[in-house]
Amino acid sequence: MTGSRISIFSSAPGGGFAIAAGLDQVIEYIRNLHFDDADIAYLRGRGIFSEEFLDYMKHFRFTGDIWAVPEGTPVFPREPILTVRAPAIQAQLLETYMLCTLNHQSLIATKASRICRAAAGRTVLEFGSRRAQGSDAAILGARAAYIGGCAGTACTLSDQLFGVPAGGTMAHAWVQMFDSELDAFRAYCRTYPQNATLLVDTYSVLQSGVPNAIRAFDEILKPLGITKCGIRLDSGDLAYLSRRARKMLDDAGWPGCTITCSNALDEYLISDLIRQGACIDCFGVGERLITARSEPVFGGVYKLAAIERGDGTILPKIKVSENVEKITNPHFKKLYRFYGRDTGKALADYLCVHDETVNDRKPLTIFDPDATWKEKTLTDFEAVELMKPIFRAGELVYDRPTLPEIKAYCARQLDTLWEEVRRFENPHHYYVDLSQKLWNIKMSLLKGKPGED
Amino acid sequence: MTGSRISIFSSAPGGGFAIAAGLDQVIEYIRNLHFDDADIAYLRGRGIFSEEFLDYMKHFRFTGDIWAVPEGTPVFPREPILTVRAPAIQAQLLETYMLCTLNHQSLIATKASRICRAAAGRTVLEFGSRRAQGSDAAILGARAAYIGGCAGTACTLSDQLFGVPAGGTMAHAWVQMFDSELDAFRAYCRTYPQNATLLVDTYSVLQSGVPNAIRAFDEILKPLGITKCGIRLDSGDLAYLSRRARKMLDDAGWPGCTITCSNALDEYLISDLIRQGACIDCFGVGERLITARSEPVFGGVYKLAAIERGDGTILPKIKVSENVEKITNPHFKKLYRFYGRDTGKALADYLCVHDETVNDRKPLTIFDPDATWKEKTLTDFEAVELMKPIFRAGELVYDRPTLPEIKAYCARQLDTLWEEVRRFENPHHYYVDLSQKLWNIKMSLLKGKPGED
Repeated sequence: MTGSRISIFSSAPGGGFAIAAGLDQVIEYIRNLHFDDADIAYLRGRGIFSEEFLDYMKHFRFTGDIWAVPEGTPVFPREPILTVRAPAIQAQLLETYMLCTLNHQSLIATKASRICRAAAGRTVLEFGSRRAQGSDAAILGARAAYIGGCAGTACTLSDQLFGVPAGGTMAHAWVQMFDSELDAFRAYCRTYPQNATLLVDTYSVLQSGVPNAIRAFDEILKPLGITKCGIRLDSGDLAYLSRRARKMLDDAGWPGCTITCSNALDEYLISDLIRQGACIDCFGVGERLITARSEPVFGGVYKLAAIERGDGTILPKIKVSENVEKITNPHFKKLYRFYGRDTGKALADYLCVHDETVNDRKPLTIFDPDATWKEKTLTDFEAVELMKPIFRAGELVYDRPTLPEIKAYCARQLDTLWEEVRRFENPHHYYVDLSQKLWNIKMSLLKGKPGED
Repeated sequence: MTGSRISIFSSAPGGGFAIAAGLDQVIEYIRNLHFDDADIAYLRGRGIFSEEFLDYMKHFRFTGDIWAVPEGTPVFPREPILTVRAPAIQAQLLETYMLCTLNHQSLIATKASRICRAAAGRTVLEFGSRRAQGSDAAILGARAAYIGGCAGTACTLSDQLFGVPAGGTMAHAWVQMFDSELDAFRAYCRTYPQNATLLVDTYSVLQSGVPNAIRAFDEILKPLGITKCGIRLDSGDLAYLSRRARKMLDDAGWPGCTITCSNALDEYLISDLIRQGACIDCFGVGERLITARSEPVFGGVYKLAAIERGDGTILPKIKVSENVEKITNPHFKKLYRFYGRDTGKALADYLCVHDETVNDRKPLTIFDPDATWKEKTLTDFEAVELMKPIFRAGELVYDRPTLPEIKAYCARQLDTLWEEVRRFENPHHYYVDLSQKLWNIKMSLLKGKPGED
């Protein structure tokens, strides 16, 4: 096992595209990965490892190369989002954490992107910590949700650690702790006059909540000249209640009072609410975002794609599997995205072998890898390599963007996708084509698979 | 806000029961919770907190009481699984972590319990780290899966930290790194002769994988006198392939070779496979267990249930909500489980006010809280309080069980549930009744809700 190894992830969200996320945590992990005395003692205690191996682990340091698509990049099924070129033992020690982290954050960034697109310009806040699958899921999930488009989070630790803007509103418990709802609202307005968002559904939204909120705003905010405030609905029919509340607030002279809604929201419910004329300025989205409830599994995999011999030759490798969709694209690869120079829109993605280069000043004929007679010739296009060098010989060579930069990049990249590709259900098929050379290699590996010798 | 506060969780998995888990991490959290200088500096930087509050945070220490059901206890919708009695500020600072942790681990323990029951005595291993929602979800999820019935995990860190037995089989990459599948199998058998489980689906299960495995066993294990070994299938039709592989192994003189299967398994697929006569000894269950894919949200909530005045009187509190299912059971409560003395089976659960005591030596008439005319009189029963004291005045008073003890307790408790209650779909309705006193208090609070004064 002294040869080198190249592995790929392929992201495979069910239909449509995903937003890649989690790379920064992978970078931190690789930089810090080591096995201390307690770890070595634990491993030795298992009784199955040689002292040579334990000694290797004690001095472990990553010395390989890594390429990856930047966080915030839209990626399509079966595309590599990270490639490791390293001695096999190193590449395998990184496997579980990298997959777990990229799968998780890409899952949440993708779901957040869908929810924010459904909100059509209205603010979306991440409210899901209490239903997250553990505290990492809450904290890093909030980070991923921010990349995907959320304006902020109720997870304060995600603000402290990553700078995701933290905010929130009152809890039901606040209202219940006072003798009356009105007293609770008054106290909150006095404490946070600049940020008074009152939760109006502890007892009855229209009979007590909204009237009491208006009374508290009138008594406390109006004398201070404050016109910005808010209410939050967390139950009931949000379309009906938000319209009724909006009218009551406007009639009472509080047009600047925003309405935030929460309660098991996702992209489908938000689309429906907007279609029904709900008067909602801000969506607080919890459990269905932080767990990606509609599809909580992100199917990224990490597979051996090639072996580099001592003499530098690279042997492409394939995993065939009994399930066709589990067959991998072999070899050490490059991933291009082609943009139309006229529209700025993404036209197709293109996987080729590492030593191929696309010249986007010349026409290029691409073909569907599954239905090879379907061809298309691109002319006025720009070819951009999606994977960037992250580590080279174990050294970090990537200029890590800030979180707001990642978020802004994600939004810009989303704009390069046609609206048909961004549709939630049955999106337009976006082509991820193989170069002729890569396709030939894949076919020859499939036909000559060792199992059928 | 100087009064004390009592809060409850109610666990609400969709239909059926859940397995409570995560308490040990909650205990650790509460014992260690503090805010260091960096935390205080961060909070001060937000510009919305008073120095008095920051000073409080700096010296924060939990001084309250906590009761909880032990980990591994089957719990039913709308039951309290943890109660905090503490000054409001303390009870609220604990909220998010407690909910996140208990929701997550109960989610996974519940799913694991279902999957293990489907496996009907066959071994189930947790294989999901790479698809977990972050590393906590992987590590603590493996812990919860073990409580719920899994025999072990592929997450080594969960072994090191919590003693969940770690194990695993070879990866596809191992097979791909060799010149041939047979060479890969030979090398693995030489390295791990006592634990040689060979992954046979990298190329073709029946044409190459199983024949090569038999050859490697014959060449390497047989001369050593080893008869225990295994193969793993990770794709294809597991019922068909496992039956064919079983026959090939038996015919070749390897009846002691176990067959492990993996590939997007859950309780439904496992039940089907067993019904179809699949020859599977061990199930490796990944993504659908570690994310609880069929329902990845565990709906535990934390609600104010009562306020304790300075004079010691306790005021029950209710949250009404626009959604009936979000209405809470008020008051500082006790939770009993009634077991039949003849059968040992659980008959019903019973929520009552803290100062009520059930005498199980006298007949007790209980009633359906939603359909109050439905009554039942219990006679030969034993009443067991489910919530145990965990903290008293900030001090841990709970004798924390070991993980194997929790797992064994969970299995014993499951046996007290009738098979009809354990059914996966449309289980028999298990009654969680309210005492007459508690029911009366709830009704009077609902009728006199402050919003309708």
